[in-house]
Amino acid sequence: MDSIKRNEIDIVKIGASKINEVDFENLAFGNIFTDHMLVCDFKDGNWQKPTIKPYEPFLIDPSAKVFHYGQAIFEGMKAYKDEDDAVWLFRPDENFKRFNASAKRMAMPEVPEDIFLGGLNEILKIEKEWVKKGKGNSLYIRPFMIAVGTGVVAAPSSHYRFMIILSPAKSYYSGEVKVVIAEHFSRAANGGIGAAKAAGNYAAQFYPTKLANEEGFQQIIWTDDATHTKLEEAGTMNVFFRINDTLFTAPTSERILDGVTRKSLIAIAERDGIDIKVQSVLVSELLEAAKNGSLKEIFGAGTAAVVNPIVGFSYKDDYFELPKIENSMASQLKDNLTNIQYKLAEDTFGWTVKI
Amino acid sequence: MDSIKRNEIDIVKIGASKINEVDFENLAFGNIFTDHMLVCDFKDGNWQKPTIKPYEPFLIDPSAKVFHYGQAIFEGMKAYKDEDDAVWLFRPDENFKRFNASAKRMAMPEVPEDIFLGGLNEILKIEKEWVKKGKGNSLYIRPFMIAVGTGVVAAPSSHYRFMIILSPAKSYYSGEVKVVIAEHFSRAANGGIGAAKAAGNYAAQFYPTKLANEEGFQQIIWTDDATHTKLEEAGTMNVFFRINDTLFTAPTSERILDGVTRKSLIAIAERDGIDIKVQSVLVSELLEAAKNGSLKEIFGAGTAAVVNPIVGFSYKDDYFELPKIENSMASQLKDNLTNIQYKLAEDTFGWTVKI
Repeated sequence: MDSIKRNEIDIVKIGASKINEVDFENLAFGNIFTDHMLVCDFKDGNWQKPTIKPYEPFLIDPSAKVFHYGQAIFEGMKAYKDEDDAVWLFRPDENFKRFNASAKRMAMPEVPEDIFLGGLNEILKIEKEWVKKGKGNSLYIRPFMIAVGTGVVAAPSSHYRFMIILSPAKSYYSGEVKVVIAEHFSRAANGGIGAAKAAGNYAAQFYPTKLANEEGFQQIIWTDDATHTKLEEAGTMNVFFRINDTLFTAPTSERILDGVTRKSLIAIAERDGIDIKVQSVLVSELLEAAKNGSLKEIFGAGTAAVVNPIVGFSYKDDYFELPKIENSMASQLKDNLTNIQYKLAEDTFGWTVKI
Repeated sequence: MDSIKRNEIDIVKIGASKINEVDFENLAFGNIFTDHMLVCDFKDGNWQKPTIKPYEPFLIDPSAKVFHYGQAIFEGMKAYKDEDDAVWLFRPDENFKRFNASAKRMAMPEVPEDIFLGGLNEILKIEKEWVKKGKGNSLYIRPFMIAVGTGVVAAPSSHYRFMIILSPAKSYYSGEVKVVIAEHFSRAANGGIGAAKAAGNYAAQFYPTKLANEEGFQQIIWTDDATHTKLEEAGTMNVFFRINDTLFTAPTSERILDGVTRKSLIAIAERDGIDIKVQSVLVSELLEAAKNGSLKEIFGAGTAAVVNPIVGFSYKDDYFELPKIENSMASQLKDNLTNIQYKLAEDTFGWTVKI
């Protein structure tokens, strides 16, 4: 990947790395950050010179628009280390494109490629020791942009901050995942911002998810807000349903995030001869399949979670347990995907990009 | 209004006030802040001691959840000064209740009354010089709460910051307001967070509003996202429609904010014998009324905007101009409301609260 030119970035390195204080075997997801962060401001109509500097809190005005009007977007990516200590990204161009699509929907400036991808390349070279070898280990990458311009008037900011922070990760979920099918609450509106990775989409799910947690469920599978009859996504994951030997996942829309893991699994499934249909599953079809035994698997897919099997779901007053399956499509697809990401299998798609 | 006890709040006053640098005759809305702010953190499961201190930027971690997941809510209120230099609030209990309803929906802790209302009382006593006499002048009050806890994992924070900042104001809008009736984009989902004053609801409107601005319109009147046939609200204002001599405004719902100005205007209209119906107007009914001449007025209502007449609207390819009306219901209701707020008319409702 092309790097940003050295003279187009300021680099201030930390005195002593904190890497030796980190227990890489016992990482909680997203709580530990590397030594450096990338910061680049947009103001006066232009992107300023990016800086890589020690990770630390920064000063912000109480009237910053991100606090009042929620102008904030992000991406989730991972860096992987192969057996030869090379560091790789997976389809970074897809995250870059989606980030700028989110920016457009939230009336924020698009980030130039040399700052987003070039800057990412540069900070990953500095932080390469934080990417650990071994399947399951990765460095989670969080590019994000917030409105730092001031003023409590509901209009787009003229001052933004793009940042990249990095967090070493093992896996996102642990334990069995049971889900609730949404009957009342919703994640996104037609003509809304559900397809954008906008901060506000996530907080909106916390209360319904808390209610689900209290009933012993970890996640919610959202349904369309108008009729609650179509299965959509799980908020931090897209969702796949296997009925007999056909795999279904909802088409992307204004309400559904165009997940990179989702589209990669679809491509792998097609390559491997799995019967995959990009088609909405109705709640009624799911219930019918659960009752007649044709529902074999449900799993979530996302960068943080990778592929996450769902062991059961509840709808209204009923709970349905998924069958335990040998050689599940979930595990087959996960292996094939992660083997590409960790350079353990040939990348016939050209998805991996070396740092 | 009961104040918070002195020993339950830390007060650090500014050295020299900046009030003399402010041109109170030429205030842009929401850009100038008073000398002090109130700050109160929630952590370890408890609200900490609030502090009133000089208004200034504060340090925040790049992984603060407000930036990534949009856990952020706010309120909009105003303080008014009467002819005897007393400072008044208007229905502050309504904002307090709505703030905590928003907190609940966003899985944030509710703020105790002594911190929200008691703290507000205390900071207004300190900042009373910033409230200027004269109808139209006010001190805009922005209580807000953000998730300052760290970590890029999509789950509620355990650390929050409640703040009150204050901004001297004249009026919100200037010039004529023309609106677009939404055909495609939406503000809120059924089962979503449209009824909460959540930050994410506002940024979601910026892009569609920008498109409207480019066509010469200032605001959008949102329609229900499922069918785009029902007129709902204008994003920063509730909306009223006068057809012949009947005034209509949509009932509150999960998609519509329960506006304090809206409910106050309804009460005043009922008291004054205006035929008011809390009932959705369909786009088709609006078009019919505009065509047959029975549509007399449209106006927005909100704390910042107070009452804002709309001079015309567009729908699809048509533009409809509203008639110019003497003694409009908009101006009658606005006068009656602001006379109560500025203590120029008897407050038969018991809405005003002295600081």
